[in-house]
Amino acid sequence: MNTMTATRSYDPSSVGVVTRQYLDVDKPLTLRSGAVLERYTLAYETYGTLNPQRSNAILICHALSGDSHVAGYYTDDPNEKPGWWDEAVGPGKMFDTNRFFVICSNVIGGCQGSTGPSSFDPDGRRYGLRFPFVTIADMVSAQTALIDALGIERLYAVAGGSMGGMQALQWSVDYPQRVARVLFIASTPVSSAQNIAFNEIGRQAIYADPCWNHGNYYDHTPPNSGLAVARMIGHITYMSEHSLEMKFGRRLQHRPQLAYTFDTEFAVESYLHYQGEKFTERFDANSYLYITKALDYYNVADGYGSIDAALARTQADFLVVSFSSDWLYTEAQARLLVDALERLGRNVDYHHVIASFGHDSFLVEVETMHKIVSGFLAKPSTSKGK
Amino acid sequence: MNTMTATRSYDPSSVGVVTRQYLDVDKPLTLRSGAVLERYTLAYETYGTLNPQRSNAILICHALSGDSHVAGYYTDDPNEKPGWWDEAVGPGKMFDTNRFFVICSNVIGGCQGSTGPSSFDPDGRRYGLRFPFVTIADMVSAQTALIDALGIERLYAVAGGSMGGMQALQWSVDYPQRVARVLFIASTPVSSAQNIAFNEIGRQAIYADPCWNHGNYYDHTPPNSGLAVARMIGHITYMSEHSLEMKFGRRLQHRPQLAYTFDTEFAVESYLHYQGEKFTERFDANSYLYITKALDYYNVADGYGSIDAALARTQADFLVVSFSSDWLYTEAQARLLVDALERLGRNVDYHHVIASFGHDSFLVEVETMHKIVSGFLAKPSTSKGK
Repeated sequence: MNTMTATRSYDPSSVGVVTRQYLDVDKPLTLRSGAVLERYTLAYETYGTLNPQRSNAILICHALSGDSHVAGYYTDDPNEKPGWWDEAVGPGKMFDTNRFFVICSNVIGGCQGSTGPSSFDPDGRRYGLRFPFVTIADMVSAQTALIDALGIERLYAVAGGSMGGMQALQWSVDYPQRVARVLFIASTPVSSAQNIAFNEIGRQAIYADPCWNHGNYYDHTPPNSGLAVARMIGHITYMSEHSLEMKFGRRLQHRPQLAYTFDTEFAVESYLHYQGEKFTERFDANSYLYITKALDYYNVADGYGSIDAALARTQADFLVVSFSSDWLYTEAQARLLVDALERLGRNVDYHHVIASFGHDSFLVEVETMHKIVSGFLAKPSTSKGK
Repeated sequence: MNTMTATRSYDPSSVGVVTRQYLDVDKPLTLRSGAVLERYTLAYETYGTLNPQRSNAILICHALSGDSHVAGYYTDDPNEKPGWWDEAVGPGKMFDTNRFFVICSNVIGGCQGSTGPSSFDPDGRRYGLRFPFVTIADMVSAQTALIDALGIERLYAVAGGSMGGMQALQWSVDYPQRVARVLFIASTPVSSAQNIAFNEIGRQAIYADPCWNHGNYYDHTPPNSGLAVARMIGHITYMSEHSLEMKFGRRLQHRPQLAYTFDTEFAVESYLHYQGEKFTERFDANSYLYITKALDYYNVADGYGSIDAALARTQADFLVVSFSSDWLYTEAQARLLVDALERLGRNVDYHHVIASFGHDSFLVEVETMHKIVSGFLAKPSTSKGK
């Protein structure tokens, strides 16, 4: 063990080295579309310790491009980057693993260990576009098998940012007795026309890549050009105009003066290229299609007739957080949820945070988030539970 | 002549049937990059009558996807749509052709009759990527040949929305004695990192289309898939979240319920597909690349050291109009110009219009624009002239 690793291992605020685990579920999952997934696997990770009463479990749900690896490291490699919300999960952090047992699983439809279009079907062939459509409700439904398997009847909280917030909300609607608290962060109870538009353009970029080949590319070159364009489109929506301006402005990447070329000239172009390329190394284009469709389909009212009818089912306490510069999931979208919860007399803490990093603020504004989240988690639940 | 045509012909507010004209310029044009365009053609149209003093000419400059056809019709076909700003140009309209001689020319680099990458070079071969890079200043410089040819020394006004506003502003900086009034509408004196980012993603979509073939596609299938994606990205930035929501919301296109398909489901998707496809019928992908680069390069300070140094050259009166829901060229960007002009003691009317149609508001908010524009044009010039 070298010094670097030792340093990390003894970092008292890190969960340290963790292992991705797998749950194979043999029970058929009936999806909202009516299709049935005969069996599926969930990749998941846990941090901290489940108490004997099994009452301290927090499920964190990930966003579009996330995975089960919220925090910590897979190896001792000192160059390895930690999980995607490492600043939030660990001893003393906002999701304090000294106190809570934190769980995160990769969504079905994903490509980071859970069953998705790149997985092999029961006959040993890649699903590709034969994979059934999944919704946010289906992702949640699949997660219940994991929570069951861990022997947890009721979650102390379900938390998530962006698409993770949709899942957290859906937990409280579909399984009201199993959730004491919902943390709904930088998210929306219903995708807007603009949300759908951006996702559809990303999908069109993938369809337009001949390597996509209607989803049959697993034995060939994947549609990396198309997926990179899709990611770049998405990435712009995660930042604010202000944060792009502060970070890059009109700075040139390679030369002191304009070069008059179609190669990279501006730093912001270089950044986008990098984000697009890096994404293709870790993400499956078909998963991008399926998960963005799930986002577009998302409307908490679906299946219940109205947002009020859906939310009337909930028994949880709610924390809702929106960010002033988030133009992907706006304050107005968060307020749709807050207003409905208040109409229904639910217990809801709403924080609209002035922040300049756009949608990504929920990952970046660590200090503010720490105060809000740990404050909310410290309060006793007003929920009736069962 | 059928009845429909007769109706149109006698519509007293239409300029009626007009003809696209061409000016061949044999004088070499030295571009900002240092490259030289040995000769070029400008496609242009005029409406109304130049007065004997040649003092009533208004040059209208078009946006990224525009052309010389501002108003009226090319044929008697009653199904033909009028020019792109027909509601603004005609007898009694904001640019009143009873009073003004209105001119519009297609920019160099374009594909609607003026010389651009799809044109033939002096050796009779398509330029493709051998076409030199053009800037907004180069577009303006090329336009001076047309104004010269029309025998006009000084323009009553130069007007434009979006990229047209950049050209109007650049006229007043590069040719201060030739412009009495500038109408700078829904535009910016300098492209932001976010502006560049959106344009670059559109270009990446074109590059990613194998049909693009590094710009050599004129004898083959053009890169329509890539160009359509680029257009869809652009199109979102022209609308507001609110206008997309009002126009489409989550309305489904074909069926009463979700179909769980990667085909068109939501009306907003159908709309984007239509916009993308329609664009490929009339626009050249290489021109899209060149013109978006010109947009990205745009900074009025370029060549003069600072925005104040550039604007200190101007002698015109200015009308600046921004729109509250325009997130492509924002109020803050318009104010950059207004503040600098005011610092320099220039005569500037600034209107920030509360409007919900995003960037497209300048084309849509006809009544408001009519009041603002005709009011500004009616005022005597305070400009010293020459």
